[in-house]
Amino acid sequence: MSEGIKEHCGLFGVYGHKEAARLTYLGLYALQHRGEESAGIASFDGNSVYSHKGMGLVSDVFDEEKVSRLGGHVAIGHVRYSTTGSTTLKNAQPVLVDYSRGTVAIGHNGNLVNGAILRAELEARGAIFQTTLDSETIIHLLARPEHKNFEESLVFALKQIKGAFSLVIMKEDQLIGVRDPHGWRPLCLGRLGGAYILASETCALDLIEAEFVRELEPGEVLFINKKGPRSIKPFGESKRVAHCIFEQIYFARPDSYIFGESVHLVRQKLGHRLAQEHPVNADLVIPVPDSGTPAALGLSHESSIPLEMGIIRNHYIGRTFIQPLQHIRDFGVKVKLNPIRELLKGKRVIVVDDSIVRGTTSKARIKKLFQAGAKEIHMRISCPPIKYPCFYGIDFPTRKELIAANNSIEDIRKFLGVTTLGYLSVEGLLSCVSCPKNYCTACFTGDYPVPFGGEANKFATEYKGY
Amino acid sequence: MSEGIKEHCGLFGVYGHKEAARLTYLGLYALQHRGEESAGIASFDGNSVYSHKGMGLVSDVFDEEKVSRLGGHVAIGHVRYSTTGSTTLKNAQPVLVDYSRGTVAIGHNGNLVNGAILRAELEARGAIFQTTLDSETIIHLLARPEHKNFEESLVFALKQIKGAFSLVIMKEDQLIGVRDPHGWRPLCLGRLGGAYILASETCALDLIEAEFVRELEPGEVLFINKKGPRSIKPFGESKRVAHCIFEQIYFARPDSYIFGESVHLVRQKLGHRLAQEHPVNADLVIPVPDSGTPAALGLSHESSIPLEMGIIRNHYIGRTFIQPLQHIRDFGVKVKLNPIRELLKGKRVIVVDDSIVRGTTSKARIKKLFQAGAKEIHMRISCPPIKYPCFYGIDFPTRKELIAANNSIEDIRKFLGVTTLGYLSVEGLLSCVSCPKNYCTACFTGDYPVPFGGEANKFATEYKGY
Amino acid sequence: MSEGIKEHCGLFGVYGHKEAARLTYLGLYALQHRGEESAGIASFDGNSVYSHKGMGLVSDVFDEEKVSRLGGHVAIGHVRYSTTGSTTLKNAQPVLVDYSRGTVAIGHNGNLVNGAILRAELEARGAIFQTTLDSETIIHLLARPEHKNFEESLVFALKQIKGAFSLVIMKEDQLIGVRDPHGWRPLCLGRLGGAYILASETCALDLIEAEFVRELEPGEVLFINKKGPRSIKPFGESKRVAHCIFEQIYFARPDSYIFGESVHLVRQKLGHRLAQEHPVNADLVIPVPDSGTPAALGLSHESSIPLEMGIIRNHYIGRTFIQPLQHIRDFGVKVKLNPIRELLKGKRVIVVDDSIVRGTTSKARIKKLFQAGAKEIHMRISCPPIKYPCFYGIDFPTRKELIAANNSIEDIRKFLGVTTLGYLSVEGLLSCVSCPKNYCTACFTGDYPVPFGGEANKFATEYKGY
Amino acid sequence: MSEGIKEHCGLFGVYGHKEAARLTYLGLYALQHRGEESAGIASFDGNSVYSHKGMGLVSDVFDEEKVSRLGGHVAIGHVRYSTTGSTTLKNAQPVLVDYSRGTVAIGHNGNLVNGAILRAELEARGAIFQTTLDSETIIHLLARPEHKNFEESLVFALKQIKGAFSLVIMKEDQLIGVRDPHGWRPLCLGRLGGAYILASETCALDLIEAEFVRELEPGEVLFINKKGPRSIKPFGESKRVAHCIFEQIYFARPDSYIFGESVHLVRQKLGHRLAQEHPVNADLVIPVPDSGTPAALGLSHESSIPLEMGIIRNHYIGRTFIQPLQHIRDFGVKVKLNPIRELLKGKRVIVVDDSIVRGTTSKARIKKLFQAGAKEIHMRISCPPIKYPCFYGIDFPTRKELIAANNSIEDIRKFLGVTTLGYLSVEGLLSCVSCPKNYCTACFTGDYPVPFGGEANKFATEYKGY
Repeated sequence: MSEGIKEHCGLFGVYGHKEAARLTYLGLYALQHRGEESAGIASFDGNSVYSHKGMGLVSDVFDEEKVSRLGGHVAIGHVRYSTTGSTTLKNAQPVLVDYSRGTVAIGHNGNLVNGAILRAELEARGAIFQTTLDSETIIHLLARPEHKNFEESLVFALKQIKGAFSLVIMKEDQLIGVRDPHGWRPLCLGRLGGAYILASETCALDLIEAEFVRELEPGEVLFINKKGPRSIKPFGESKRVAHCIFEQIYFARPDSYIFGESVHLVRQKLGHRLAQEHPVNADLVIPVPDSGTPAALGLSHESSIPLEMGIIRNHYIGRTFIQPLQHIRDFGVKVKLNPIRELLKGKRVIVVDDSIVRGTTSKARIKKLFQAGAKEIHMRISCPPIKYPCFYGIDFPTRKELIAANNSIEDIRKFLGVTTLGYLSVEGLLSCVSCPKNYCTACFTGDYPVPFGGEANKFATEYKGY
Repeated sequence: MSEGIKEHCGLFGVYGHKEAARLTYLGLYALQHRGEESAGIASFDGNSVYSHKGMGLVSDVFDEEKVSRLGGHVAIGHVRYSTTGSTTLKNAQPVLVDYSRGTVAIGHNGNLVNGAILRAELEARGAIFQTTLDSETIIHLLARPEHKNFEESLVFALKQIKGAFSLVIMKEDQLIGVRDPHGWRPLCLGRLGGAYILASETCALDLIEAEFVRELEPGEVLFINKKGPRSIKPFGESKRVAHCIFEQIYFARPDSYIFGESVHLVRQKLGHRLAQEHPVNADLVIPVPDSGTPAALGLSHESSIPLEMGIIRNHYIGRTFIQPLQHIRDFGVKVKLNPIRELLKGKRVIVVDDSIVRGTTSKARIKKLFQAGAKEIHMRISCPPIKYPCFYGIDFPTRKELIAANNSIEDIRKFLGVTTLGYLSVEGLLSCVSCPKNYCTACFTGDYPVPFGGEANKFATEYKGY
Repeated sequence: MSEGIKEHCGLFGVYGHKEAARLTYLGLYALQHRGEESAGIASFDGNSVYSHKGMGLVSDVFDEEKVSRLGGHVAIGHVRYSTTGSTTLKNAQPVLVDYSRGTVAIGHNGNLVNGAILRAELEARGAIFQTTLDSETIIHLLARPEHKNFEESLVFALKQIKGAFSLVIMKEDQLIGVRDPHGWRPLCLGRLGGAYILASETCALDLIEAEFVRELEPGEVLFINKKGPRSIKPFGESKRVAHCIFEQIYFARPDSYIFGESVHLVRQKLGHRLAQEHPVNADLVIPVPDSGTPAALGLSHESSIPLEMGIIRNHYIGRTFIQPLQHIRDFGVKVKLNPIRELLKGKRVIVVDDSIVRGTTSKARIKKLFQAGAKEIHMRISCPPIKYPCFYGIDFPTRKELIAANNSIEDIRKFLGVTTLGYLSVEGLLSCVSCPKNYCTACFTGDYPVPFGGEANKFATEYKGY
Repeated sequence: MSEGIKEHCGLFGVYGHKEAARLTYLGLYALQHRGEESAGIASFDGNSVYSHKGMGLVSDVFDEEKVSRLGGHVAIGHVRYSTTGSTTLKNAQPVLVDYSRGTVAIGHNGNLVNGAILRAELEARGAIFQTTLDSETIIHLLARPEHKNFEESLVFALKQIKGAFSLVIMKEDQLIGVRDPHGWRPLCLGRLGGAYILASETCALDLIEAEFVRELEPGEVLFINKKGPRSIKPFGESKRVAHCIFEQIYFARPDSYIFGESVHLVRQKLGHRLAQEHPVNADLVIPVPDSGTPAALGLSHESSIPLEMGIIRNHYIGRTFIQPLQHIRDFGVKVKLNPIRELLKGKRVIVVDDSIVRGTTSKARIKKLFQAGAKEIHMRISCPPIKYPCFYGIDFPTRKELIAANNSIEDIRKFLGVTTLGYLSVEGLLSCVSCPKNYCTACFTGDYPVPFGGEANKFATEYKGY
């Protein structure tokens, strides 16, 4: 249910290319699915730092003239949804500041569990905050005066922060990539001729025809400058690796390769496993497009029940859509997806979706499918019931709103009005990835790799700018 | 190849609903795929006529305030690509004029084969033209003073024009739908409570939850006013019916029902037949998304070769995309579609697409698939080779540019670099629709249902405004 | 009171300059005071005609890219207020059409008194109208098929129309300037190197450094093409010349030279004469800026009472001003003009303005001046009482709203709340121009040079587009 | 020469009005001449802080919807030119931050002479800077943790900063106005019913019909909350008062009352004195509009040489003006001002302007006046030669570019090409204000009231964002 979950951010960085900002623009374009609310690029040409940020899609924020003005051979870029911090221009990233060691720009993907505490401590020491972003907190830590050099101060800052953080940092003539020791969020390294690239997902490397080198390791800090790349691992003995399983289930683009595997193939396996765990006699398998498609394919292959594209998605949906007439209920569902009656009429249908969050959107879709003539609807979900909030960057609603946190499967089935309902088991889910112990499944199990202090409210400290 | 072919226009009309313009806005939204270049709505409230038109997508052209100002219970709307007439605001439809009988607004889908001649004749009689649209020509005919009443003058005008024309007309308190006697372009009637709806495709009825009543018949002129609907058939003895086969192959949305059948099901049958006509041993079937997907499904079902979504489509592509770096060749292809290496590596792949126009886009895609590791690529096209231009509204390039007009299948195969290449036969194509004789296949066969005078140049009479 | 009266339009044309459209842009900029609602340019490069129009100021409608696209050595441009026809994009000029003799573009300044009749006649013959502009009517007449050549058809059209019309016409490689036989509206000829320029006012020639050659004569039709300029006088025996006296009083820019004299000097003479006709003892003369300034100077010089700039004008006023708080009465007056207390306190003040239309704005200003401390206010108006509507292009309100049409001078004085009130006499007004008999003073006297049929309603035939 | 000098900023604040933000919008509108580059408002409703800022004029940045969202009874607003800090959105004010004591917003008019040093010190202690504004520096000082309460921390901060600063501060439910102990920049207090208003100039009070109470005193800090206003004077023994004389000469609106007198009357006196210091026989006095007009009036009255408005100003000039043709030299001058030939021809003319900065604009204007026929041109400048840069907020160019810093009066006369040239003397200038010792005249004399460390470069610490 893309409606219910928002990914945080996409990161991109370039070192050593004369069109660094333009490559970054293209990279952000390929990462647009990771954040549609704002986009920004900062660049450096050896003398000056340039930046531009704005609200909206990459193609809204940048035009030829704006990209042209972002000179230099180093650049970082960012697309975001709000996880911490409300949706306003001041919260667009990268955050760019001057401090005693010069100028630094940071883009962050993830969520700090101790962000509010650090902020309170920093404020107590006299810090002022102009955004509600974790990135600004990280820079404040970085700017603490007691360190010998930039690297030492960066390591100090990174050791203070807890939670999920993949970072791209531009410190004048240096590009730095960071993954937190748990490795929650992806970040990979690529090469394009003599230039180095950092990107959240490999699909961004593909677009600019860069070669995929490797993923950064959990806990790795990679410095790239004119001498080439150099890695350090400042976080001491290794922590439990905790890749976000939802990147595999829903967030990442299916053509990306992350956490050591093809996202599309993982999703197909989820479908195979789902067929095994919840077999049913049916005439058709139909995906909720586009996110349910890979699992539906797997389920269809495994069960030998033919796949049909029984729901058509309207790809013109934009942000400025005018409110519909009162009489059209569930309009948000209808405008995006339309079932094909001729396919569904009188059929026993397996509908495959990636997840259920609140359940209201699914309910509306199911109703439409029955109206279109389906005789039975067997809903299959390619992940387990989502019962717990995420403190590492996924914008699930509160527990109160998570349907699976408060209801039995049977209750959910009744609420949705489906004939049968099958969720993938946690074991089933983990059996589809090559290194199951390296994943965080806290949203399903409540087993949080890093503890947190109370249910964080992302608006807690915030004023309402717009 | 969606790049190579442009559909003309989408039509929508409402009679008898207090939010006629808002319904029209929604209808145009659902018909956006039929025309992305301009959008317009005209409405009537019993006293005044209102209108708004603009360049771009429906969601760009209209906002809440603009829709709110379009008062009244009658409305017509239009989305367009340029087929005749260049892409400028003055050529946006509906065309709205004052003349001796009051005010009339017209939206046109199709192309007149005698448009240039009629225009020359009208100009010789003193007519002036402010657009390069067929719609304006039709209104000039309508405004000829020698007739008793509006209906007589409309019939007179319709009898003068030759070629493809589905029309929605608003004549103050009356909504009129017209289909030319050959029935080239679709137009259907729906009901929403007490209101009547006209729409190019049924998917627009679905969105507003209107009930589908029937398609207008070829040669039918349907008057709708406060007394309800009334039909006339002014074109005399029936002509050869000539539905545009390309509506089934590519133009219409797969969730629409046109020319008596489900578009999606027709496209699936094309895939079945394609499998029969060009069998091949392979590991995977992959569609060129999204237009190749239904035929790929059919081909996969028929051949029992598993379908895989091996190419991912980026749906964020907008019009304002910044030109990429020089070094990225075939960028237009890459930014839209990205293959999944892990699926393709070492595989024999059947790639299914709906059509080939110039061949250059297909060639670039094939190259990417081989680079992604495909061992063999068997290209299957769900229509016959396009050899002849269309004079009824499809914006094919000139014969010189149509690859199949000038090359043998083997030459095309070599040009594309594929292992094998199979086009669907004309017989095969027609076997997939229920009434084969009722279709125009001139683009494949050169058998034109209505003759035309020389290769029309859509820019012939035109000045360059913008 | 600039609030009450709107000028019609400004015209500009270029023949024989490689940057014709850019010069036209600059010319329209200098003529912006003649029309702030829409702007447009059409140009011709020997092969193609280009055009762009939009709502708003010249600087809003055009940017570098848009001007660059308007290629060619011939161009005409237009700025407008609505006099006939409402304020919508479709009514922006120049009107550009194709007809049997090719392409023609026309810009019109003035108002036809037989426009509605001609339109009805044309519609009865089958003409269709897409705008509510007189220009479109003129083109319909021009397109009548019975003539041998363009010149003959133009002469025919010009002989049909009655009322006020200065025209610039682009007929492919030809620029034509026309003034009606009464010479209501100005139009002048200039040279810039080898190029010829037409402009409503000489201030537009000044800006582009063109040399002022002469004003077109009433009834003159001036053809300019590669052979140079050629004049004809098709209107037969000379009619009564009737220059609009309001161009001298208020419309034209004071740095322009029109109807044979310097506008600024005429306005100063009005002030001298006003001092003679209505002498009064006072401490200060203050103008209502900016339009009252020249007459105030003249009055000050004549009376030897010192001029003071006692009211400051805010020049940032734009169209998008947000509605003020309820409690601020007469906000429209306040936001534009603010009196200087220290100057006015305890003083007997002569306030000079160019005209009074409804009286409400003047009343609000007078109140502010008394609040600022003025002891006596002697209002002096540099034109006679406006009692009659204008049918030749000035957008006065209806007679009902014209305060002087319905009230004695003493009543007006009481309404305004001034100590004394003095209007210039018609004789006094005419004594300030060199050729008094050549002016139309119908708005003061009711003596209309060309009769009209009933009180025209500019919205009579109009639908409401926007 | 308004081209050469830019004022810094305009300030406005409201406490205790339910439409605080709307009043602030109107106040900024009246103060627009003090800053055209950006505008911003922050407001507080008892619970939340709201803000909106943008580049451009007040009417571009705000619309009805944006103003409506700025809820609350407290608001501050700011318009700015860049003096410190380049022209980018991040440098728009008010600056709004969260810190340990809550939320604070600050708008600043002036320039700190120790801004760079304070910034360096703060950075050395770990502060990070997201803008290049003095306001951010002030907030960092304010946020230092060692103080008991807000008032104590504010006083601490104010004592650290040196130079010119008028401030409006919103600390949640409190509005604070501050003037530095030298009183460089104006700030006044007004009342509107029960509400209190702060404004840079009284013209902003006039627009909203607030009553002028008094100017804040140099060194005064005025706290306004629900208990009413309360003043403190934290800067100890009184410093030399140093009002900016250029506010009187050029910056302030003539209808404002600042530093104890009417700006318009001061400017008129400058003209009187100029006539006494540099008498000359001439036919006319003409001002360079609009800023030269009051002094020209004074000079005309004193010399009994008649004033004429011989140069017309085009008020449509916007920011987006398209670059003119190459062949039009001095276009920037021409598009703004056009002389009236008929007035100037053969005349001996006294031209009055407020100042000369680089001299290039004046030279171009003089040339135009001679071309328009002037026989002699006697240039009179209503201030002394500008020889020294300003470190308190005026954006003069560097000394190298100041024509009077490097040339004798006779050299300047030759450069401009005028017949005679007369500057007002420093004594003459000071004789026109009631308390001469209370003014800073450093730009004429080099006598700087507060020392500074080297020629400050406003771009010194800055990165180039846009």
